[in-house]
Amino acid sequence: MGTRVSTTEVSTTEAVDNGILTTGPIQGSSKYYLEVDELRIPQRRINLTNGEHLDVYDTSGPYTDPRESIDVANGLAPTRDLWQRPAPIDGAATQLAWARAGLVTPEMRFIAARENVEVEVVRREVAAGRAVIPANHRHPESEPMIIGKAFAVKVNANIGNSAVTSSIAEEVEKMVWATRWGADTIMDLSTGSDIHMTREWILRNSPVPVGTVPIYQALEKVKGDPIKLTWEIYRDTVIEQAEQGVDYMTVHAGVLLRYVPLTARRVTGIVSRGGSIMAAWCLAHHEESFLYTHFDELCEIFARYDITFSLGDGLRPGSIADANDEAQFAELRTLGELTTKAKSHGVQVMIEGPGHVPMHKIAENVRLEEELCSEAPFYTLGPLATDIAPAYDHITSAIGAAMIAQAGTAMLCYVTPKEHLGLPDRDDVKVGVITYKIAAHSADLAKGHPRAQERDDALSKARFEFRWNDQFNLALDPDTAREYHDETLPAEPAKTAHFCSMCGPKFCSMRISADVRAYAEENNLVTAEDIDRKIAEEMAAKSAEFTDAGGRIYLPIDAGSST
Amino acid sequence: MGTRVSTTEVSTTEAVDNGILTTGPIQGSSKYYLEVDELRIPQRRINLTNGEHLDVYDTSGPYTDPRESIDVANGLAPTRDLWQRPAPIDGAATQLAWARAGLVTPEMRFIAARENVEVEVVRREVAAGRAVIPANHRHPESEPMIIGKAFAVKVNANIGNSAVTSSIAEEVEKMVWATRWGADTIMDLSTGSDIHMTREWILRNSPVPVGTVPIYQALEKVKGDPIKLTWEIYRDTVIEQAEQGVDYMTVHAGVLLRYVPLTARRVTGIVSRGGSIMAAWCLAHHEESFLYTHFDELCEIFARYDITFSLGDGLRPGSIADANDEAQFAELRTLGELTTKAKSHGVQVMIEGPGHVPMHKIAENVRLEEELCSEAPFYTLGPLATDIAPAYDHITSAIGAAMIAQAGTAMLCYVTPKEHLGLPDRDDVKVGVITYKIAAHSADLAKGHPRAQERDDALSKARFEFRWNDQFNLALDPDTAREYHDETLPAEPAKTAHFCSMCGPKFCSMRISADVRAYAEENNLVTAEDIDRKIAEEMAAKSAEFTDAGGRIYLPIDAGSST
Repeated sequence: MGTRVSTTEVSTTEAVDNGILTTGPIQGSSKYYLEVDELRIPQRRINLTNGEHLDVYDTSGPYTDPRESIDVANGLAPTRDLWQRPAPIDGAATQLAWARAGLVTPEMRFIAARENVEVEVVRREVAAGRAVIPANHRHPESEPMIIGKAFAVKVNANIGNSAVTSSIAEEVEKMVWATRWGADTIMDLSTGSDIHMTREWILRNSPVPVGTVPIYQALEKVKGDPIKLTWEIYRDTVIEQAEQGVDYMTVHAGVLLRYVPLTARRVTGIVSRGGSIMAAWCLAHHEESFLYTHFDELCEIFARYDITFSLGDGLRPGSIADANDEAQFAELRTLGELTTKAKSHGVQVMIEGPGHVPMHKIAENVRLEEELCSEAPFYTLGPLATDIAPAYDHITSAIGAAMIAQAGTAMLCYVTPKEHLGLPDRDDVKVGVITYKIAAHSADLAKGHPRAQERDDALSKARFEFRWNDQFNLALDPDTAREYHDETLPAEPAKTAHFCSMCGPKFCSMRISADVRAYAEENNLVTAEDIDRKIAEEMAAKSAEFTDAGGRIYLPIDAGSST
Repeated sequence: MGTRVSTTEVSTTEAVDNGILTTGPIQGSSKYYLEVDELRIPQRRINLTNGEHLDVYDTSGPYTDPRESIDVANGLAPTRDLWQRPAPIDGAATQLAWARAGLVTPEMRFIAARENVEVEVVRREVAAGRAVIPANHRHPESEPMIIGKAFAVKVNANIGNSAVTSSIAEEVEKMVWATRWGADTIMDLSTGSDIHMTREWILRNSPVPVGTVPIYQALEKVKGDPIKLTWEIYRDTVIEQAEQGVDYMTVHAGVLLRYVPLTARRVTGIVSRGGSIMAAWCLAHHEESFLYTHFDELCEIFARYDITFSLGDGLRPGSIADANDEAQFAELRTLGELTTKAKSHGVQVMIEGPGHVPMHKIAENVRLEEELCSEAPFYTLGPLATDIAPAYDHITSAIGAAMIAQAGTAMLCYVTPKEHLGLPDRDDVKVGVITYKIAAHSADLAKGHPRAQERDDALSKARFEFRWNDQFNLALDPDTAREYHDETLPAEPAKTAHFCSMCGPKFCSMRISADVRAYAEENNLVTAEDIDRKIAEEMAAKSAEFTDAGGRIYLPIDAGSST
């Protein structure tokens, strides 16, 4: 496992009592563990007022379990260290090497239970390179998860320390907050002098895989001058981060010298940080990128720790105008070549994707990525479906994200309302994560992912039956749903009332639908033909009956802005 | 024109000075008129700091023109009354009848200039029934607009008075506010005793078409008991509203008695207000809907005023589980039959659509609507792509809305964050409209709508050149974009700084891209082959040159949450 930080300046009590760390369950839910042999797979159990419950995927770690004691200074329990790890295969101690060899790891069993699929599906997808399990041996605190199109679509949230370093507990809280709302992985994009220490605290306390972009730290080491970067400095940075336990690393190894001029006529040139660093280096030295020329050595390092490559799209489009252009797809072809090379070392790979893409060009990105990169999991930033709505780019990008995930993207990197404008605060992070859970879940529904619709059905049933608290608790964000309802009808009885604020007690569709249901059941109506026959037979008789019964209708729950 | 309200209780000065009415241009824009013969077509001119400008479609009416004096008590100028109207054709004084007869109306010429297309395109699309121009002769204050898939995708915002009636100026302000941010039409869904007067004020002051659902007012007249509804009460309500100038009316004439039991096994039954009213009436009387049996008479009324049918989807799905079911599509087939009938009377028709639909079932809705309803314009509510995010249903539905618009939907009915939970306030209305402008514009881009990408390109160019104020002013919501930027870098110089708050002055991609551009131009590099050749030739020489020039790079503007 990674180097433990020995300081005890922040104790459980301090961080939790100071209110810095968010702990305790999401309202209406409780932590529940599936026990499978030596494994304890976390689930969030949403308890309903009708005695039923719904268990949902849980990314929040022990922070939402009141039975767990949290101690930021000591970090989470290194549970994975207790699990039996197979011997390396041809030098690769990786899930990919083991899956190919037909070996099932504890991580695969954990994931199978978590995703509710057969373990063989997990092994097969990993072996084929269609899914990755980012799990550095030195991050034993993580709860294994999988990224691949056969599984639930995942969401990444980026965090990073600000210029003025906040306390360690505050840094950890960013991760805790993002995972509380459903982030499946986080990327630590910190810059500045304290990044090693910040990363250490995050890793030791993170129940989800942590990704980084090592070139950022390497650049700090040469005081921000990309021309001074060398393979050796970069390699040492990677090893430093590998030792700490980083689970996946973005490497912009596809930005080749000859692709750089392809961006010259773009509306927005190169917008990737890593991409522009490497482009500057290539142009200055007029040499091929050291990430490309030393890629085999990088693979050897990654294979030892089981770090997953996230091959960066340094030439991704930064505007609608630049989408799907020659620069972007030239780089993608090179990423395909590097994917093959990484896999030959037994190293897991995913591929990063755009960015800004109009809707009609989205599917082509997935098709080409799968074709050129042997179906390695695609991991995209949005994409934004239009450029014209800064301050709403979580929404412009959720449209693209949902569509690209439907087409096969395995993980979505979130975008917050502050994108292009400023640094996201706590509220922005939450809005970004929830928005991306919407995109991911919409794609799961569209892909027919097993069990995805359970939650929609449970919520809609609660809505229709006016179980307001159940409706809130089943929502991605119970707190905000409850708050909005309270604005119009704050009293507690309103939470059990058989009406809502949009139409008032007199107007609601529940009653008419109950009448309809009773009528259909009474008359054993199943098919349209049954209905035609019965209506013909009983029209006159039923008329009197319905009128006697009151015949009063209620208007619908959808009526806030509909007809 | 409609009955003018004679009271003078609210004067210009009062309403504007009290701050009730929002007037004046959107920041960075000014009103500009295209003059075409006797017509003045409003445009919003966004003035850029580099001396250029971009003219965009403008729905806001005279309220954003400081040269206009606004007098709520007198209403807007009845400009359309000055235009020459052709004689009725077979009793129909409608844009459809005239278009079919090969006649071009002032409304068609106005729209052609507004949409930047040939007037023949407008006439042809209206004649074919693929587009509608909702323009009641008694709403002469409106600025003509068109709804059809060959044109820019439109957005409707629903407004409606609250139980405690606010002042007239406040009612008008809801419309002014929604159209300021881009609502192309509004629907007045008011209920209660003052709806006639409220509607009158809205119509007299509205520059956009106004839609209603007459059954709501008819229900008020029978004290909320749907069983007491009659054709005569409904007809008289329609005539009352027609006289006032309502431009389009939602009529749930496709909810047939025999379809009602089809909803019995649904998760969420009937969720449309109008649908449940008619279902209750049909069940109680065991008779066919009077909207269906008297449809021809309704068409005769509509033909006199040129009111457009918005054939309501009373059986639309209210949940993912109920999408694309038998009840929904049975009703759609009947709407197709009614479309043919309405058109035979020379009456314009659009068709309302869902609701809640998972992404993979969206395209089928458009395909079937076009097939069954002779390509009449489709007007959908969302649809929501998942049920699990109350408080974020503007987002869940924007995903569906963008996709259904890409597939051919002509107008989108907005959804606010309060959907399913409460009544939208002013902020919710703005967020709803902006979110739907995003969906509509994303679809325009995807459909290759002429000029749609101009605004994306202008904004992205401004972004890349660090013209911050231009970037804000080109945004759908300049105020919020500016506010978010101010949160991190409030000082005015930051608005012209060549860096942004995400990466600071040292990190930005602009410089490297300028270097790349200079290099490509110097060496006359256009194709990849040029580049290959030049790189091979000049590699060594350029290296020294770039290093001498400083070779320092900046990091990118996308870096807020990306790599």
